[in-house]
Amino acid sequence: VIVKLWDKGTKIDQLIEDFTVGSDYLLDQALLTADCQGSIAHARTLERAGILTAAETARLIQELETIERDGLTLRKEDEDVHTALENVLCARLGDLGKKIHTGRSRNDQVMVDLQLWSRGQLQAIHAQGLTLAETINEFARQHPDVMPGYTHMQRAMPSSIPLLAGSYIESLLDDLCILETAMNINNVNPLGSAAGYGSSLNLDRDYTAQLLGFHGSRNPIYVQNRPKLMSIMLFSLAGFMKTLDKIAADLLLFTMAEFRFFSLPEAFCTGSSIMPQKKNYDVLELTRAKAAQLHGLLASVEMLGSKLPSGYNRDYQLTKGPLFEAVRITSQSLAVMTGIFQQLEVNSERLRQAISPELFATDRAYELVQAGTPFRTAYLMVAQNLDQIVVPDDIMQDRDFLRFRDYTPEITQHRP
Amino acid sequence: VIVKLWDKGTKIDQLIEDFTVGSDYLLDQALLTADCQGSIAHARTLERAGILTAAETARLIQELETIERDGLTLRKEDEDVHTALENVLCARLGDLGKKIHTGRSRNDQVMVDLQLWSRGQLQAIHAQGLTLAETINEFARQHPDVMPGYTHMQRAMPSSIPLLAGSYIESLLDDLCILETAMNINNVNPLGSAAGYGSSLNLDRDYTAQLLGFHGSRNPIYVQNRPKLMSIMLFSLAGFMKTLDKIAADLLLFTMAEFRFFSLPEAFCTGSSIMPQKKNYDVLELTRAKAAQLHGLLASVEMLGSKLPSGYNRDYQLTKGPLFEAVRITSQSLAVMTGIFQQLEVNSERLRQAISPELFATDRAYELVQAGTPFRTAYLMVAQNLDQIVVPDDIMQDRDFLRFRDYTPEITQHRP
Amino acid sequence: VIVKLWDKGTKIDQLIEDFTVGSDYLLDQALLTADCQGSIAHARTLERAGILTAAETARLIQELETIERDGLTLRKEDEDVHTALENVLCARLGDLGKKIHTGRSRNDQVMVDLQLWSRGQLQAIHAQGLTLAETINEFARQHPDVMPGYTHMQRAMPSSIPLLAGSYIESLLDDLCILETAMNINNVNPLGSAAGYGSSLNLDRDYTAQLLGFHGSRNPIYVQNRPKLMSIMLFSLAGFMKTLDKIAADLLLFTMAEFRFFSLPEAFCTGSSIMPQKKNYDVLELTRAKAAQLHGLLASVEMLGSKLPSGYNRDYQLTKGPLFEAVRITSQSLAVMTGIFQQLEVNSERLRQAISPELFATDRAYELVQAGTPFRTAYLMVAQNLDQIVVPDDIMQDRDFLRFRDYTPEITQHRP
Amino acid sequence: VIVKLWDKGTKIDQLIEDFTVGSDYLLDQALLTADCQGSIAHARTLERAGILTAAETARLIQELETIERDGLTLRKEDEDVHTALENVLCARLGDLGKKIHTGRSRNDQVMVDLQLWSRGQLQAIHAQGLTLAETINEFARQHPDVMPGYTHMQRAMPSSIPLLAGSYIESLLDDLCILETAMNINNVNPLGSAAGYGSSLNLDRDYTAQLLGFHGSRNPIYVQNRPKLMSIMLFSLAGFMKTLDKIAADLLLFTMAEFRFFSLPEAFCTGSSIMPQKKNYDVLELTRAKAAQLHGLLASVEMLGSKLPSGYNRDYQLTKGPLFEAVRITSQSLAVMTGIFQQLEVNSERLRQAISPELFATDRAYELVQAGTPFRTAYLMVAQNLDQIVVPDDIMQDRDFLRFRDYTPEITQHRP
Repeated sequence: VIVKLWDKGTKIDQLIEDFTVGSDYLLDQALLTADCQGSIAHARTLERAGILTAAETARLIQELETIERDGLTLRKEDEDVHTALENVLCARLGDLGKKIHTGRSRNDQVMVDLQLWSRGQLQAIHAQGLTLAETINEFARQHPDVMPGYTHMQRAMPSSIPLLAGSYIESLLDDLCILETAMNINNVNPLGSAAGYGSSLNLDRDYTAQLLGFHGSRNPIYVQNRPKLMSIMLFSLAGFMKTLDKIAADLLLFTMAEFRFFSLPEAFCTGSSIMPQKKNYDVLELTRAKAAQLHGLLASVEMLGSKLPSGYNRDYQLTKGPLFEAVRITSQSLAVMTGIFQQLEVNSERLRQAISPELFATDRAYELVQAGTPFRTAYLMVAQNLDQIVVPDDIMQDRDFLRFRDYTPEITQHRP
Repeated sequence: VIVKLWDKGTKIDQLIEDFTVGSDYLLDQALLTADCQGSIAHARTLERAGILTAAETARLIQELETIERDGLTLRKEDEDVHTALENVLCARLGDLGKKIHTGRSRNDQVMVDLQLWSRGQLQAIHAQGLTLAETINEFARQHPDVMPGYTHMQRAMPSSIPLLAGSYIESLLDDLCILETAMNINNVNPLGSAAGYGSSLNLDRDYTAQLLGFHGSRNPIYVQNRPKLMSIMLFSLAGFMKTLDKIAADLLLFTMAEFRFFSLPEAFCTGSSIMPQKKNYDVLELTRAKAAQLHGLLASVEMLGSKLPSGYNRDYQLTKGPLFEAVRITSQSLAVMTGIFQQLEVNSERLRQAISPELFATDRAYELVQAGTPFRTAYLMVAQNLDQIVVPDDIMQDRDFLRFRDYTPEITQHRP
Repeated sequence: VIVKLWDKGTKIDQLIEDFTVGSDYLLDQALLTADCQGSIAHARTLERAGILTAAETARLIQELETIERDGLTLRKEDEDVHTALENVLCARLGDLGKKIHTGRSRNDQVMVDLQLWSRGQLQAIHAQGLTLAETINEFARQHPDVMPGYTHMQRAMPSSIPLLAGSYIESLLDDLCILETAMNINNVNPLGSAAGYGSSLNLDRDYTAQLLGFHGSRNPIYVQNRPKLMSIMLFSLAGFMKTLDKIAADLLLFTMAEFRFFSLPEAFCTGSSIMPQKKNYDVLELTRAKAAQLHGLLASVEMLGSKLPSGYNRDYQLTKGPLFEAVRITSQSLAVMTGIFQQLEVNSERLRQAISPELFATDRAYELVQAGTPFRTAYLMVAQNLDQIVVPDDIMQDRDFLRFRDYTPEITQHRP
Repeated sequence: VIVKLWDKGTKIDQLIEDFTVGSDYLLDQALLTADCQGSIAHARTLERAGILTAAETARLIQELETIERDGLTLRKEDEDVHTALENVLCARLGDLGKKIHTGRSRNDQVMVDLQLWSRGQLQAIHAQGLTLAETINEFARQHPDVMPGYTHMQRAMPSSIPLLAGSYIESLLDDLCILETAMNINNVNPLGSAAGYGSSLNLDRDYTAQLLGFHGSRNPIYVQNRPKLMSIMLFSLAGFMKTLDKIAADLLLFTMAEFRFFSLPEAFCTGSSIMPQKKNYDVLELTRAKAAQLHGLLASVEMLGSKLPSGYNRDYQLTKGPLFEAVRITSQSLAVMTGIFQQLEVNSERLRQAISPELFATDRAYELVQAGTPFRTAYLMVAQNLDQIVVPDDIMQDRDFLRFRDYTPEITQHRP
């Protein structure tokens, strides 16, 4: 029989139960490992406080390690992973199981689970971000083509694949900086804060923090400002999605029939159910859409957290879904984009054809400047004689920045 | 063997397939009925255009009705309901099955499914909104208590349960107006628009519209402005959630120990895993949070749709999840709030105690006004003598608006 | 000397005053007419309630009409238009001026001002929406050109300028529907609700409503759910901006050098400070950006209003700026877009060149269908023989929907 | 006569000019110093590249320093600060003035202005954040009172002013971390990127970077991903506003008549125009609202930047207003909140009265745990005997964390 952690014998309305439990029992499946690890550290802390004996602690840890190894399938009536775990411990260990929740609340238990889980996920995304940066770097190395640069969606000046690739890489490097800040803020111990106001049990929070690899312990009330803490992680993930959105926007434009600068193999594209000729870059369109989804998730968490007084509010339960969803979207999108850059085909001929004379109008003005004409005067002279501009033989001349720049050193700096 | 509707023999990358199919095969389960109904109307339209014979049409309809009745479980490899259905038809009817997609595209098929499904859902929510309004009306009838009215979170003037209830009901009536507009905009035929540019088959769209109960047919390109059309529905749902958010905010404040104006039975409340004394109104907190979720879903769809050129873009696939989620949240929240007002307990004694003298400061000023003092002067006189104000014997005197107002006539007007 | 309406003699901290007054004194300049009109109706209602004599009422109305006619420049120390107006009345009429605020609060006064002002503004925007629809209709009539239709940003099927124009017009017609709902919800009397809990003065609210052209009076507490009421207006304006965003996205794409389907005269374009050749469609880019701004204003108001208990909260002051800004943006953008369609140049030659054979792949499949091949089989046959497709002599054949459709009847229906 | 930087002699439509110039000429007033400083560094770089002589450079710098010192009032016809400045230089220096724009575009000029301006503003906000943290720290030191801690808006456990204050301080310290990351990302040189694709003039960007105190130069294309770069700053400011929103939510609750834990002097409060007794904490309500505004500004910039291809897009102009507004809001709100904590009055008596027995239910369970009862069993025993709980004589006993914790060391770490 399943017992709620707060069960005092009253029956809860079924509609209310569905409403309040929501999909936590599904989401929480991912938190089992973290819940075991947090519980192990908590057991050790209880032992140090003299609440558990060495034997009890060992017995609890043994059982928790077994569950972590063997897994545990959550059912709706379990409500959440914390309840499920405690119920299993009670079933297997009797009264000893009933001791594990001493000095902690679901409030700090949820946070330790989410923070441990996030730590692993954010580390993985950090690695994915670096891999994508390296992949783009390699792509740029292999494709030193010149291409037109656009402003206001109009041809503007000569650009190059390495220059464009560099903009993506620097964007990713900034994303990594923000992610690192988010990881750092995430990595502070919530355990010992209990329901948000600590306990009278003198638990050694520094010891718990050390066991779990956290650098310090968080103020018990601040532990419960979950929407703010989550929004930092969500924003850091949104950064990557903004970079991917930009790449997707470029590639969707440059793969149009009217440009055809780039293309992707058939295996990356989908077709139409009605138009036999279609080759669609759905994967890029969905990347744009997923960036918008992340904006929505962030907006949801930001609004959810606003105007709430300090201390735990149940509203916070609904930050878990957005965090999980955001991690999933970002991770999957980074993987897909890495695959794209591994396969992206460059149509050098089309790129070269697109290098039209008007891209050199500013250069022409600069030639006049070098010969002594003030820039503003030269600008007007060129504007009135646009048809006299020609594409130079060596576009790269005096344009070193169009050449490949190797970002390996910067990328390496972010390696843990 | 499952065949994609756009399959031309190339194998798609697995990562890409996961990314593009997403959870559509799960969401689409809900669209089976609509897909069958839309397909039946399309078959009849093809018959009228001379593309299907009467016998073919009858055979297709028979099969579609069978599927609608018996159901069909979608698997991930089915990609979506449209593919699954066409594959089943082909398996069962051979070449005839291959004819059903003539003159239509997944683009208009998705829209007809979503619009038919939404029509039913929005009608149900409309009925739920009315039921909640009636429930609150009845609650107000039974609890004519006076209570303090607050501004700036400070006691301001005498108010009453009926007055507060009336504000909720009028809010719901406005929500119903917006919902009706959304329902009206939703109820326009998309079929015949095919991929967004119609077809050369001279399909009689008015006939299709009539078969499906739509009032007219939508411009083929505009059919594909899905984010805009979806955002109208989402905003109409968000209206209800804003009303519920306001109610939840009030009840959460007024059930605090410091107020205790209202309470809910234990069956509507939850407890704490650590604090034995807690009786928490999680259900109200989650209502606030779900209102925030709806804001996030709307924000997601709004951003998703921005800056995209006309015609279908795959980004639009990701409007389906938010619509489904928004419908689910709103429907469930309306049901829960109706349950709450059926069970909400009023603590008349506490309400009466809260009627403190300062609530009548303005009345005192008005007494001076009635005796000839200009209001601004009276205001200053009262401000300097706040301790002389007393609670009148009959608070309701000269305050008819504090009494119960029966909204049955207005509510009835919205009955279909 | 300026007196605050709530002045009781204490000096307020300067920093706090700056923080709380904000820019209201600037925004409120636009509300002077509405404040005078609302005050006139209120004076008449006070007369009917026996609080003002006929002579007093006449004197107040005379003065209010004078101020409405001559204007009044608000200074920062006036705090807002309501204070400024009452101070002027007191200065000019002595004790009589001090009577005007009887039975009303700034809370309902702000709302009546905003609602009257909005009524005029939304009517003007309604007219602008219709004008734009008519202008696009006329543009379509004059340019019956065929053009490629795109899906997934790839050429898909034959389309036409009238078909595309029709999608814009139908989008605008939906925007008008939502705007009309918003106007209707806006047009309910707030006066008599005072601070949110009415007054003991027995004011005849129906009379006030009739004087000001409102259809009925709003529940006093609901009057103060300002963020919700504002968000309805904002969303209705955002609808227009989404339509304009879509048009801008299309035109920015189709004016690129690689398309050049359309162009605008130099007078509508801007240049670059550095590139002499540039002709930029800034006006379209800014339209996209302003649509995003409106999303932000809506998001701001939605969050601002969430989780607040019933009754006035000062937070609501900050809905005024977003409303004003949204009206300004929408009105200006509609005017600019109307100008654009009056001047938009169509490059028929480029459009015709863009009609490439693959746009007819589906047609080719339909030909096979007409000859008896099931669609799915025909689809595969065409997919394998894309190079055999040819552009037909008469593209319009069997495609009546590509021809101009006159939307004058639908547009006319929205004329007041 | 005012000349646009891109003027080639065509007259622009007046409506279009209003639409495109917007309020830049007003906003840009704040950028004059930055524009002068950036221009000085650019002049030096042009000298190093041999484009300006030493004498020319000196003359330009002299004039730029004069303008920086004396100021320059922008008019609408100036369009922006860049145009105004170049026009003044041309007027005063003739052909030499026309040389200053060599090798730069308004695109990189805007960015250098915004980045230099932001650097100063963010530094000031950083200092304000530290000051607020110190002020709260001092407030906590002076008010070691115990108070009830709430969860789910219900009394939960004993808390204290220092514990609550600590949560605010730790929140601010996290905000500072994010701000520091934002400042770091902001501090990279954009000059030399010109319109987004560099120039053929071999300008030494490292030299420019060094002159302006930037650590390195940004990829020219990435310089123009302005919405992403701005959104990082906006998010870092939003962090502070979320902290202030939380504080405001707490104080608004705890200053209600039903709590009266805290109060503010009259000089920090405002009154009502109709209710003589009101003392409103508008300043806290507006803080909540301004946090919502910041969310809206961020949402606006996030949407504005989505789906745009690389390279400058005019949409980006509309990120300037949100940045300015966000800086203004955050700075003003931090100042106000610092003032509040300097004046906040603590009602120790009310706090002590609010320490009711049920806050110790968990303690009672722990006593049973200490005596050997498993926690879950003890929990149930206490739940059934809530009326036997008593408030202990020494609440602080075994609760060291309720005592003042001095955050001076952590705050000091953030001092530059």
